Amino acid sequence: MFTYTELLEKINQKIANTQYGQNPAELYDPITYMMSLGGKRLRPVLTLMGCNLFKEDVNHALPAALAIEVFHNFTLVHDDIMDNAPLRRGQETVYKKWNMPIAILSGDMMMIKAIDFLAETPGNTFSVLLKAFNKAAAEVCEGQQIDMNFETSKDVTHEAYIEMISLKTAVLLGASLQIGAIIGEASEQDAQHLYDFGKNIGIAFQIQDDILDSFGQTAQVGKMIGGDIAANKKTLLLIELLASVHKDDKKELETLLQASADIKIPGVLNLYKKYQIQEFAEAQKEQYLTLAFQHLQAVSVQPERKILLEKTAKDLMERMS
Amino acid sequence: MFTYTELLEKINQKIANTQYGQNPAELYDPITYMMSLGGKRLRPVLTLMGCNLFKEDVNHALPAALAIEVFHNFTLVHDDIMDNAPLRRGQETVYKKWNMPIAILSGDMMMIKAIDFLAETPGNTFSVLLKAFNKAAAEVCEGQQIDMNFETSKDVTHEAYIEMISLKTAVLLGASLQIGAIIGEASEQDAQHLYDFGKNIGIAFQIQDDILDSFGQTAQVGKMIGGDIAANKKTLLLIELLASVHKDDKKELETLLQASADIKIPGVLNLYKKYQIQEFAEAQKEQYLTLAFQHLQAVSVQPERKILLEKTAKDLMERMS
Repeated sequence: MFTYTELLEKINQKIANTQYGQNPAELYDPITYMMSLGGKRLRPVLTLMGCNLFKEDVNHALPAALAIEVFHNFTLVHDDIMDNAPLRRGQETVYKKWNMPIAILSGDMMMIKAIDFLAETPGNTFSVLLKAFNKAAAEVCEGQQIDMNFETSKDVTHEAYIEMISLKTAVLLGASLQIGAIIGEASEQDAQHLYDFGKNIGIAFQIQDDILDSFGQTAQVGKMIGGDIAANKKTLLLIELLASVHKDDKKELETLLQASADIKIPGVLNLYKKYQIQEFAEAQKEQYLTLAFQHLQAVSVQPERKILLEKTAKDLMERMS
Repeated sequence: MFTYTELLEKINQKIANTQYGQNPAELYDPITYMMSLGGKRLRPVLTLMGCNLFKEDVNHALPAALAIEVFHNFTLVHDDIMDNAPLRRGQETVYKKWNMPIAILSGDMMMIKAIDFLAETPGNTFSVLLKAFNKAAAEVCEGQQIDMNFETSKDVTHEAYIEMISLKTAVLLGASLQIGAIIGEASEQDAQHLYDFGKNIGIAFQIQDDILDSFGQTAQVGKMIGGDIAANKKTLLLIELLASVHKDDKKELETLLQASADIKIPGVLNLYKKYQIQEFAEAQKEQYLTLAFQHLQAVSVQPERKILLEKTAKDLMERMS
């Protein structure tokens, strides 16, 4: 079996050797640019890991791994337009560096190329792979739309929030593993367990992200504490606070949400403490983690083959705790 | 064999019976809306015709026909954002009726759904179909980008212009027929001839469109004569005029291109007449039409089976002449 570093190296080499097209340059340069910005390459590494659980040779999973990373970056190119975001991984977004039409169109081309790469997978699993891929792709779009709806929605339930992060982020982590497993000729059951492992890890990771925004250390998180609070972002914490707050604190919370950041952040943090919102969120996170590891345990390969996936998931959770 | 009306009815019924998804409504309503705006349904009808040339039963080609129409409409949804267009088929564009993020995202979803529909094609031709489909899809994006580049480009050659309209419009007409033919179990050669027939008809049709903007009758064209001239749009006519104009008329043309529409339109039309630009464009159009019909002739089915395709192509050209 390969190490994380070896798999990452395989992906990075694959990306470095990939030509997306040349003419017109205005269409293809943004794709090369976006794909060269780096990032954790978590999804394609998971695809190779999913394959490597069942097979020593992971080369057959490389086109699919690339497809997933290109698809993921396509969603980022389009999301950056929708969010009017100037920076991505510390560099200008495609939308800012070029313009909006170019960002729309080069994103569209990335989606087309992603399918092309997936189709390069050797063997006869393509229609099964495409089904898993397109289901996740559609769900990512649904998640993004639901997330946008939340911005103007008055009452978002905790269940609706979990559904949103599940669609927007977690299902693609699940599908990355599942697709790798299918290429590794895993049974349908094993591929499904890996999907559920990845999906539940993804949900736990997003909850962790919400917790850290309010309770992390600035240096570890790498961004200002309370950014979500300042932006009135409907995180699991705020949703739970809005649902739990007693009548006599409700007025204060409503006033706080209209206040400037220097008043809002400490005020909301106080209410989070009073209503034990961090404890609630931690418990939720643990619940999804437990579920995730149950699914990993159910995968029918020797326990020692699962160590790398376990470690990767744990590192992901601890990286910022 | 089926008539045009029968094939159109099959497509319209297929579209009417198709559910793209339900939740969130903000994502799926725009798709249903866009697909219900109508239009000629030329591309999916061509797919069914391509199949019907070789097989009496065209039902197997319906999912692919739908895929092509959904893909085409996806490009329109995104093009309307890039062009800031308020109307499409006399109705508000998705971008205007909802907003830009929704138009980006529902367009993305249409691309994903198009692939899903294509994958519903019975039999084992999917990987061949996908190759043809994705090649055309990528070329349509390239054509759109080249068209956008032309807006700010100083010297566009006549060859570059033909390449642009070929990519932006014609290849999808070719691929529509080719995909239908593949589903009808045509030989690779026959499918290729149909592709070339559709592509060359598409080029001829675009040239016709350019001619009619300057030399058509307002009532027939359904839009103001000279709209392209007023907008300094780089049509085949203007490109040829810029390339042919003598030194002593060059200055006049440059002044005209800066003038208001009431001076520019009659002035440029005069130069078109002086340099016989209409004749040049008509000759170009005829050249592509001849090439198209040579490819249709080479398709190895009985001549009487080709009558409907011939008639459809001629109607398309005469509809607005």
